Amino acid sequence: MKVNEKQYQTIWLKEGDNSVVQIIDQRFLPFKFVIRDLKSFDEVLSAIKEMQVRGAPLVGVTAAFGMYVATLHYSPSVPFGEYISKSVQKLQSTRPTAINLGYAVNKQLSAINSVNSLEDKIKIALKTALQISDEEKEYCRKIGIAGLPLIEEISDKKKGESVNILTHCNAGWLACIDFGTATAPIYLAHDKGIKIHIWVDETRPRNQGARLTAWELEQHGVPHTVIPDNTGGHLMQRGMVDLVLVGSDRTTLTGDVVNKIGTYLKALAANDNHVPFYVALPSSSIDWNITNSIKQIPIEQRNPDEVKYIEGYLNDKIEKIRLTPENSPAANYGFDITPARLVTGLITERGICKANKGSILNLFPEKVK
Amino acid sequence: MKVNEKQYQTIWLKEGDNSVVQIIDQRFLPFKFVIRDLKSFDEVLSAIKEMQVRGAPLVGVTAAFGMYVATLHYSPSVPFGEYISKSVQKLQSTRPTAINLGYAVNKQLSAINSVNSLEDKIKIALKTALQISDEEKEYCRKIGIAGLPLIEEISDKKKGESVNILTHCNAGWLACIDFGTATAPIYLAHDKGIKIHIWVDETRPRNQGARLTAWELEQHGVPHTVIPDNTGGHLMQRGMVDLVLVGSDRTTLTGDVVNKIGTYLKALAANDNHVPFYVALPSSSIDWNITNSIKQIPIEQRNPDEVKYIEGYLNDKIEKIRLTPENSPAANYGFDITPARLVTGLITERGICKANKGSILNLFPEKVK
Repeated sequence: MKVNEKQYQTIWLKEGDNSVVQIIDQRFLPFKFVIRDLKSFDEVLSAIKEMQVRGAPLVGVTAAFGMYVATLHYSPSVPFGEYISKSVQKLQSTRPTAINLGYAVNKQLSAINSVNSLEDKIKIALKTALQISDEEKEYCRKIGIAGLPLIEEISDKKKGESVNILTHCNAGWLACIDFGTATAPIYLAHDKGIKIHIWVDETRPRNQGARLTAWELEQHGVPHTVIPDNTGGHLMQRGMVDLVLVGSDRTTLTGDVVNKIGTYLKALAANDNHVPFYVALPSSSIDWNITNSIKQIPIEQRNPDEVKYIEGYLNDKIEKIRLTPENSPAANYGFDITPARLVTGLITERGICKANKGSILNLFPEKVK
Repeated sequence: MKVNEKQYQTIWLKEGDNSVVQIIDQRFLPFKFVIRDLKSFDEVLSAIKEMQVRGAPLVGVTAAFGMYVATLHYSPSVPFGEYISKSVQKLQSTRPTAINLGYAVNKQLSAINSVNSLEDKIKIALKTALQISDEEKEYCRKIGIAGLPLIEEISDKKKGESVNILTHCNAGWLACIDFGTATAPIYLAHDKGIKIHIWVDETRPRNQGARLTAWELEQHGVPHTVIPDNTGGHLMQRGMVDLVLVGSDRTTLTGDVVNKIGTYLKALAANDNHVPFYVALPSSSIDWNITNSIKQIPIEQRNPDEVKYIEGYLNDKIEKIRLTPENSPAANYGFDITPARLVTGLITERGICKANKGSILNLFPEKVK
């Protein structure tokens, strides 16, 4: 999508120099727009570890490019097999729970091992990285196409008056390669000239909404307003939200949605006020085995300091300030579970389905056991 | 309640010098504990205007002391009647919507006008200020007594295991004179040795939970944990909340509760998970005329900068940092309305009632028209 009027992805090869990977260093957003060159394998490792890139799809693609960079910089002081499996280990240890990372790295490993000469290994690693990147992009594009009619319908009903969409966290292009998941139908609608306005939950404690989603929308020219996470219920009560559109970290076969903490509260408010609540997700994030989400899915507890301290901009610097009394403990649960009964529908790359097993398997018949 | 092991109120007369009013300057909490002397009428005005004191009951009592200080410092260059009615105007213009302020100032005016000599005026103004202060304190004490059995019952059911109570915003003693409203049963239970633990919603955007409620509880030794406002639903889903206890800015005769933005979302989650949701309030905050809250009650929109910027502590200073992209708009709705159907009960100074007209009028029969 656009940044300063120019078209960007979150990761790409440097123009004129295929040996350098470039990324947007997201740690500085929305305060500074920093493009970083990743010239060595260690720089790719750091980019993932230090969260210069984040979001499951983007982390996967970055790891895929990491495998390419590793292959590119192989020097024959150690056997190639040993070298490449150490690289795999290093990449996997950066973010151990990221499913996309494991998928990307393993796909690269098979590709690299399928040919013999170093030259061919480098060629196929580059091709595979670009292919994984394009796949991810294509998933998002298709989610956009699938979700667009929802927005068009509301726009028609409102006779072209602005469609108000509420979103939580960042399920935007910054988490992916382009388009995003929840934002894909939004960008498509906007680019088609449909009048929309996005309510952006700031999404405490890490403020991905206020920092990333707001920045994305602002740069692409989509009208939006940042709101505290407490606000959505009030807006829905007053008829100021036409549609809730969020992403998902994991969706169960039975339609329960694991997403950023606070999503469940918005789903409850949507349900109470008859506002449609849709979840956009690539099918790669569907968990085909979980049937009792609240019992079977452990919720990650993150560092309480993310609640006690907050990062922002002061005098041209990014600063971290303390919000709570020094001796007050804090808790930081990363996700919550929105039960399927509160979800109006799932928007996938194959189209929209209801949040239940029958409807999901109808779209993905190859998953029927 | 206790601060650094010493018993405090939010406002009091200086020991040994009845002409000086002392307050806790709440702007610096929880980072610094500052006691401020209010020696002149102008200092009282500033204390209210600059939000050194906040919370409807405390603002009212401060204004009452302001009338006393005005009387005390009368110099006969202008007629007393003119002087005192100017003082009334100045006080009322500080926070024009505060109901308690108007009540306190008018009560003082009648008292002061009921006697003739300046000496008597000063005496009665002091007596009236102390009386209004004691009234407010007594309301809170009685709310505590009325609410305590709710906590005791849960504690008994849990066989003495810690009772987990979630609260939103600051309905604590810092908003009142002592005890607080929602916190009154909490302090009483704690002081009786009942094991409790409080989940403190940070309460964006002004963070009254993280800054004030957490500080109060920490100073008084009540176990607590600060959480982002997004967290409560998840905790209730997992059985980690036994009771939700909040305050109210305005409660309608039909039982709808106007309180800090975000309260409604917690009420929905409580309802969805069968967690009792109680609202503590002095009857002075009941609006006996409103019957359709969502249509009749306008919701205050505050400065968007309260969303875009946040205050915290850095290098021994209170600093304000920017959280959002420079050009992203923000919206800041102050309150939301929790419909009566989501409220388990109201805790008033006369006891507990259901959130409906019949039950409320049963406790306050003098209000039957």
